[in-house]
Amino acid sequence: MSSGSFVVAVDAGGTSSRAALVADDGRVLGTGRGGRGNPVSAGQEAAGAAIASAIGVALATATDAHPGAAAGVTVALAGATVATDDLWLADALAGVGVRAPLTIAPDMLALFASGTPLLAGYGLVVGTGATAVRVAGGGVARSADGTGWLLGDDGSGFWVGRRVARAAVLALDGRGPATALTPHVLVHLGIDPEQAGRVDHDGRPVALGGLVATVYRASPLALAELARYAFAEPDDAVARAIVADAADELTSSLAAVRKEGLRGPVVIGGGVATAQPALVDAVLERLRADGVDGDVHRVTDGLAGAAVLALRGAGADVPAQVHARIVAGTGSAG
Amino acid sequence: MSSGSFVVAVDAGGTSSRAALVADDGRVLGTGRGGRGNPVSAGQEAAGAAIASAIGVALATATDAHPGAAAGVTVALAGATVATDDLWLADALAGVGVRAPLTIAPDMLALFASGTPLLAGYGLVVGTGATAVRVAGGGVARSADGTGWLLGDDGSGFWVGRRVARAAVLALDGRGPATALTPHVLVHLGIDPEQAGRVDHDGRPVALGGLVATVYRASPLALAELARYAFAEPDDAVARAIVADAADELTSSLAAVRKEGLRGPVVIGGGVATAQPALVDAVLERLRADGVDGDVHRVTDGLAGAAVLALRGAGADVPAQVHARIVAGTGSAG
Repeated sequence: MSSGSFVVAVDAGGTSSRAALVADDGRVLGTGRGGRGNPVSAGQEAAGAAIASAIGVALATATDAHPGAAAGVTVALAGATVATDDLWLADALAGVGVRAPLTIAPDMLALFASGTPLLAGYGLVVGTGATAVRVAGGGVARSADGTGWLLGDDGSGFWVGRRVARAAVLALDGRGPATALTPHVLVHLGIDPEQAGRVDHDGRPVALGGLVATVYRASPLALAELARYAFAEPDDAVARAIVADAADELTSSLAAVRKEGLRGPVVIGGGVATAQPALVDAVLERLRADGVDGDVHRVTDGLAGAAVLALRGAGADVPAQVHARIVAGTGSAG
Repeated sequence: MSSGSFVVAVDAGGTSSRAALVADDGRVLGTGRGGRGNPVSAGQEAAGAAIASAIGVALATATDAHPGAAAGVTVALAGATVATDDLWLADALAGVGVRAPLTIAPDMLALFASGTPLLAGYGLVVGTGATAVRVAGGGVARSADGTGWLLGDDGSGFWVGRRVARAAVLALDGRGPATALTPHVLVHLGIDPEQAGRVDHDGRPVALGGLVATVYRASPLALAELARYAFAEPDDAVARAIVADAADELTSSLAAVRKEGLRGPVVIGGGVATAQPALVDAVLERLRADGVDGDVHRVTDGLAGAAVLALRGAGADVPAQVHARIVAGTGSAG
């Protein structure tokens, strides 16, 4: 990288996108935020516009950064491991004057690089979905799960939320134990919990019919919003079992990517992991028993990591001190 | 019922509807078939037209039956236990000249009455979904499950099919044992099973990515089509465990409606129960251990039962001999 140049890093997500301009010494020259940047869920045109907008804001806040001086652009995208046509993205970048070499990186790799400057270790994301990776030589060597709400994402926010809903269904239907989760679920869905005492003509609580009808009117993924109640009731045996099972599932996904002798570091991110440290603690306890006992780094996003990958792509080294400066400047630390 | 009169029975389903004209001695004067008759999934207008068409065909095949002579009409509908406005149905019936008193009956009750002339016992439907009922005094006293693919229907075709898909996912992802189900799932989804040996850039079989992408392009309920493979591999430990778990779940739903002292009869129907007698046998074995050991009747639909309910509604008795004649004439026996 030549003097005065910088790299452009973008963490493009399903709900919002963040961009940063980072110099080779790790100084963050500017940051910006834009809308939904995932081309699969938002569409290529909207995603490109959101990413360009985030970069545009970053350029505007860094008055001394000229777009033509960018030495490289790295955009972290979910599902980026699938070979993607990136013309839509190159066009959007040209629109804000950025014409540097473009790299699309897997979001899991960017997340890992937000947590550590090392080139090998483990990554775990627990949000609405859940994915584990082993990183080796600075690339993803092995992934596990991330197979979505219908087939997997075991231990994820959706997985826990669906279990919470089912616990209420089973209790109301006389097929499972009473649980403190039931009133949480009913209130969340706008159903009067007092109805749980009233019986329908087929011998079941009126509230059960209301619960079922309300759930099917919404998107299946809305069940993920119920996950929080499992963590809110640590004295309830049903809730506790759901959290323990989730930790088991996440540990099992990490076990699938595990390599003997690689003890860490472990980088953990995602909305549920950030909001529910008790779940992360339970996973770490299980990992230590399995011999994965390296440093643990909690991160909030992959923006710092995208910058790390961009700097490496532009030929720069990223020692620990530079890494720490990037993380502090992007706010990617958990 | 006056001489020369008859009742009209309809089993209105999500994929097709059947109608029958039945005299008070159980003779079936005519039958007819029509399209999708569920007002929730097909819409009230289309459902009414399909039901009227089925009745019209039945009237046309029974040359001596005048629509004006109908003593009563009973239409069996899923979700009919929810109080339904039936104007859409009355209008459709008037369109084929039938103006007799109309009753909407729960499909589970009609199914039960297809299997037995008795007024109390148990019913179990295993199709894409799964529901258990206890019948008492000729009405539904208690239901269990039937809470749909996202929340329950435990042990149903969808439930088994999703487990089959998950077994393949876990095996391909290195998170579960190898299973004979994997090639079945891949071939069913149009994916070359040879790909299972080729590894993607994230260390996983190429076939796993294809499986996941193909499943999410289709409706979740399409997973029910995979259920058959669990029954096709009795020598595979993973497949056997899925079938055993399904039988446990169905038995648990029946246990939730169980009343001490009521030993049967047990009426079993639904597409999966009809196609997979081994599943029904496994459930019956568990029920006998629980003290539910009355007669077992397998039925294919609720048409005979709708006629039984219609005759009772018109004031006629339905002794065993009349019941047997209705079942033979409608073809509702399994």
